[in-house]
Amino acid sequence: MKHLLYLKDLNQSQINKILDLSQEYLDSNFSNNHGNLLQNQSVASLFFEPSTRTSASFQVAAKRLGAETVIFFDEDKSSTIKGETILDTVKNIEAMGVRAFIIRTGDIDLFDSLIENINKETCLISAGESSISHPTQGLLDLLSIKQSKGSFENLRIAIMGDIRHSRVAKSLAEGLSIMNTGKVVLISPEEFRPDMNEFPGTEYVADPIRGLNDCDVVVTLRVQEERIESHESGMSLEDYAEKYQLTIDKLELCKPDAIVMHPGPINRGVEISNEVADGKQSVILKQVENGVAIRMAVLTEILKQ
Amino acid sequence: MKHLLYLKDLNQSQINKILDLSQEYLDSNFSNNHGNLLQNQSVASLFFEPSTRTSASFQVAAKRLGAETVIFFDEDKSSTIKGETILDTVKNIEAMGVRAFIIRTGDIDLFDSLIENINKETCLISAGESSISHPTQGLLDLLSIKQSKGSFENLRIAIMGDIRHSRVAKSLAEGLSIMNTGKVVLISPEEFRPDMNEFPGTEYVADPIRGLNDCDVVVTLRVQEERIESHESGMSLEDYAEKYQLTIDKLELCKPDAIVMHPGPINRGVEISNEVADGKQSVILKQVENGVAIRMAVLTEILKQ
Amino acid sequence: MKHLLYLKDLNQSQINKILDLSQEYLDSNFSNNHGNLLQNQSVASLFFEPSTRTSASFQVAAKRLGAETVIFFDEDKSSTIKGETILDTVKNIEAMGVRAFIIRTGDIDLFDSLIENINKETCLISAGESSISHPTQGLLDLLSIKQSKGSFENLRIAIMGDIRHSRVAKSLAEGLSIMNTGKVVLISPEEFRPDMNEFPGTEYVADPIRGLNDCDVVVTLRVQEERIESHESGMSLEDYAEKYQLTIDKLELCKPDAIVMHPGPINRGVEISNEVADGKQSVILKQVENGVAIRMAVLTEILKQ
Repeated sequence: MKHLLYLKDLNQSQINKILDLSQEYLDSNFSNNHGNLLQNQSVASLFFEPSTRTSASFQVAAKRLGAETVIFFDEDKSSTIKGETILDTVKNIEAMGVRAFIIRTGDIDLFDSLIENINKETCLISAGESSISHPTQGLLDLLSIKQSKGSFENLRIAIMGDIRHSRVAKSLAEGLSIMNTGKVVLISPEEFRPDMNEFPGTEYVADPIRGLNDCDVVVTLRVQEERIESHESGMSLEDYAEKYQLTIDKLELCKPDAIVMHPGPINRGVEISNEVADGKQSVILKQVENGVAIRMAVLTEILKQ
Repeated sequence: MKHLLYLKDLNQSQINKILDLSQEYLDSNFSNNHGNLLQNQSVASLFFEPSTRTSASFQVAAKRLGAETVIFFDEDKSSTIKGETILDTVKNIEAMGVRAFIIRTGDIDLFDSLIENINKETCLISAGESSISHPTQGLLDLLSIKQSKGSFENLRIAIMGDIRHSRVAKSLAEGLSIMNTGKVVLISPEEFRPDMNEFPGTEYVADPIRGLNDCDVVVTLRVQEERIESHESGMSLEDYAEKYQLTIDKLELCKPDAIVMHPGPINRGVEISNEVADGKQSVILKQVENGVAIRMAVLTEILKQ
Repeated sequence: MKHLLYLKDLNQSQINKILDLSQEYLDSNFSNNHGNLLQNQSVASLFFEPSTRTSASFQVAAKRLGAETVIFFDEDKSSTIKGETILDTVKNIEAMGVRAFIIRTGDIDLFDSLIENINKETCLISAGESSISHPTQGLLDLLSIKQSKGSFENLRIAIMGDIRHSRVAKSLAEGLSIMNTGKVVLISPEEFRPDMNEFPGTEYVADPIRGLNDCDVVVTLRVQEERIESHESGMSLEDYAEKYQLTIDKLELCKPDAIVMHPGPINRGVEISNEVADGKQSVILKQVENGVAIRMAVLTEILKQ
């Protein structure tokens, strides 16, 4: 593994290696001398879209491994203030001795253009790319499922929300496919039905009652108010919440031991009710904990060479 | 000590312990292997009100103890950008393995709601709460007084300025009361006279001549121009400065060895004159040095368990 | 060396010492236990003008030497939000135990006023001062030239662009003069011709054809669009680029082994063409790498005492 941009580029054994290493970090409570694994490595973090939790999660992961230098650029104070291109910025930071770049971007051409121009030993880690990829989120979702369910083969997994614009859904579906998951069901209003060519092997239903039936895992997605309220169909936020909010009632359609996931941040009362988000079946905060472990594992795998 | 929110929750022996430990850090010039005391601890800093000095002081203190991860959120880039609640943010950072939160807030309900919801092992340290508490400032003020005067019993201490809106005055008065200070005099225009129930055991006078007479310590407070100029009484900044600015003349009303304090940042020529702020009796910069030591001691006491 | 504000304050042997130490850092790939050289030192970085690369370069340098605490203030969130003076801010950070300040400012009186007021053991390092000084940039430029050319004595060096407003040109010219450089030629439109008293020993020409002839080194400078387009002469950006852009054609006027430099960030297609910036004779990214080494050497020299 050289870069981490799309889960579909990995095979099952690579994913298992990352999940196993993450679980080791968790089991040792992050305390077994991991602090010098990356001691002389420098990592840069460039976020061209706002983020608190993903950025903080990578920060914590890098520091816990002893990575020497973590520079944070965010959309406000990037050098673009002087009109420099992102590529020149990256080449400059690379020249300062930084070997890995953690990048969040809305620009789907950025990673291609970077790969063409960076040094051979430089690594790119996607922290979110437009609506098409969020690989570390996908991996932490896989880990959260594996922890609860043991394996993927016989599971029925629902992903519910604005599938069309969701990089979380995209990366998770890629990962679930590689892990030979039993069945993946995408649930969304017709307005947010994705191009099904991008979700091979999955099933789409507009009806949550039908989609949630007998599921082992429900992954709820954040919806963006603006996307709903500006949609030509005239759908309102209330319409959406009434039909697609994961409530106790809807959760009862799933298996009794089904787990509930959400990438955060949560819109309470929109895509998920308070009772479900904070309930016993929710592993939402466990996902956050797993996120740090996954990012440590990814940094380790990519930088240890 | 589990959290540090209000000095009134501490007893004399707890305060003495913190003052003594702070003095040890100062005496050893911060150099005696303190750098690994908190080596595997993660601390998060969330400032929902602007601050440079308090935030920097906590930063320096945490790093000097080797605390592993310090995440800084400030009002500009908190995740509230996406409408997440502060509680969800805190629960998320907690899930990343952070054990102590340093929080500055204008919201007087925040700490209560956090305490109800955080994990048992998570600690909260107030870095300023609305106009009601600033406990580490209170402690550093106590340390500065003790360094100069040895003890509190027979002292006459004046606090002068906008008492009503001052969290600094509030926390210091709580601390001085616990330390059995001889006499605490609050001096302010009638407009800024506080609810005296919140300052038990203190005396209020509007007249600085009377209040400063024979004092051992004068604590000047920052005034906010807007508060003065928008007051219905029609008081102007010039009126205020003429009557309440601590000048050489007014300082001569105090004991000859009286010390002058200010929590900073200073409005030179408003609540304090240049000559006094930079004069021999001023311990204002010593307060800043003490601030780092106090915050190290507080972090140590709270996190060492 | 106590502070580093202007290269003209150094002598040849001091400059050689810094260049040699930087080269050692580079040769050892930054890996020879430099990480504890400044282990108990605290460094503060105050940028009152925007910067990404210089600020990041100092950050990386400080961390690579193990400097304990690096606080970053930038123009957005300095405590000036509450009206505090910069001097009070510096005195406060000093009281927190910080020994070196890395400062970028547009105010040409700031360093004088700081030196009058700071403690004897406090050090100031300029990271750029108005249009008059940028000493670490000058040093990294010297190092880049020395690496390619071995020595300075017989070189012909052109600096081309908006010389009048360039702190980069100013510091480099000071350094080249101390190093007894053969010939320094300043090339700019008449509009940007500097006061030649500030560039003793150099030659000015408006004509790039004449100036570039037979050069060993060409240093291109960033031009600011606003400065060109608002000039009373009516010069347009196109006029400027046509005459002063370093293109392949113009580069051929220089010696065949001439090197091309630029302090960054680059305005591609304005002061330098893509082909030249990314070409074989360009050492622009090498300059960035050298920048980290130079800043490590400067911090070491200043703080090791």
